[in-house]
Amino acid sequence: MIRHTVAFTLRHEPGSAEESSFLEAAHGLAAIPGVQRFERLRQVSSKSHFQFSFSMEFADAAAYESYNEHPFHQQFVTERWAVEVADFQELDFVPLDTSVG
Amino acid sequence: MIRHTVAFTLRHEPGSAEESSFLEAAHGLAAIPGVQRFERLRQVSSKSHFQFSFSMEFADAAAYESYNEHPFHQQFVTERWAVEVADFQELDFVPLDTSVG
Repeated sequence: MIRHTVAFTLRHEPGSAEESSFLEAAHGLAAIPGVQRFERLRQVSSKSHFQFSFSMEFADAAAYESYNEHPFHQQFVTERWAVEVADFQELDFVPLDTSVG
Repeated sequence: MIRHTVAFTLRHEPGSAEESSFLEAAHGLAAIPGVQRFERLRQVSSKSHFQFSFSMEFADAAAYESYNEHPFHQQFVTERWAVEVADFQELDFVPLDTSVG
């Protein structure tokens, strides 16, 4: 299992229609083959400035790579992410003592 | 649900006995009342320098606060975390459209 996460802030006003539109559009990522346990999360620690996070899991590195190359993902990155995200940090995880498959 | 996560790097050499000792000691955090889905993870994205992460879930803010105040947690922070961790970042999450209970 590989868990892919990305914490981010948006250029939009909190609570705005533009913010909602972005978060709604991300639902489409959950439908890409191989994506498991897709979550849209609000970041609530005062120790970080990030506002949101997406989290998803893949069975192995091949499924993760297939997601990265999927046309919907690439379109989302180009048309929404690159335009609307102000700052982000990716963190990917595997259970301890497990190698990436 | 509140998911508490902390990504971190250790002062120890990768693969060292000291590294293993720290990660083993963290198992004790999972036994603190209110801690659910405790995970020890390896951070594998080349886009971040963090080596590891702990992730756990709490039913509500009261359970999270009780964890923070628990003697084992406070001892772990003082005796191990403050001494052995070189750098860390906390991120806490709630499902989108959910307020912190």
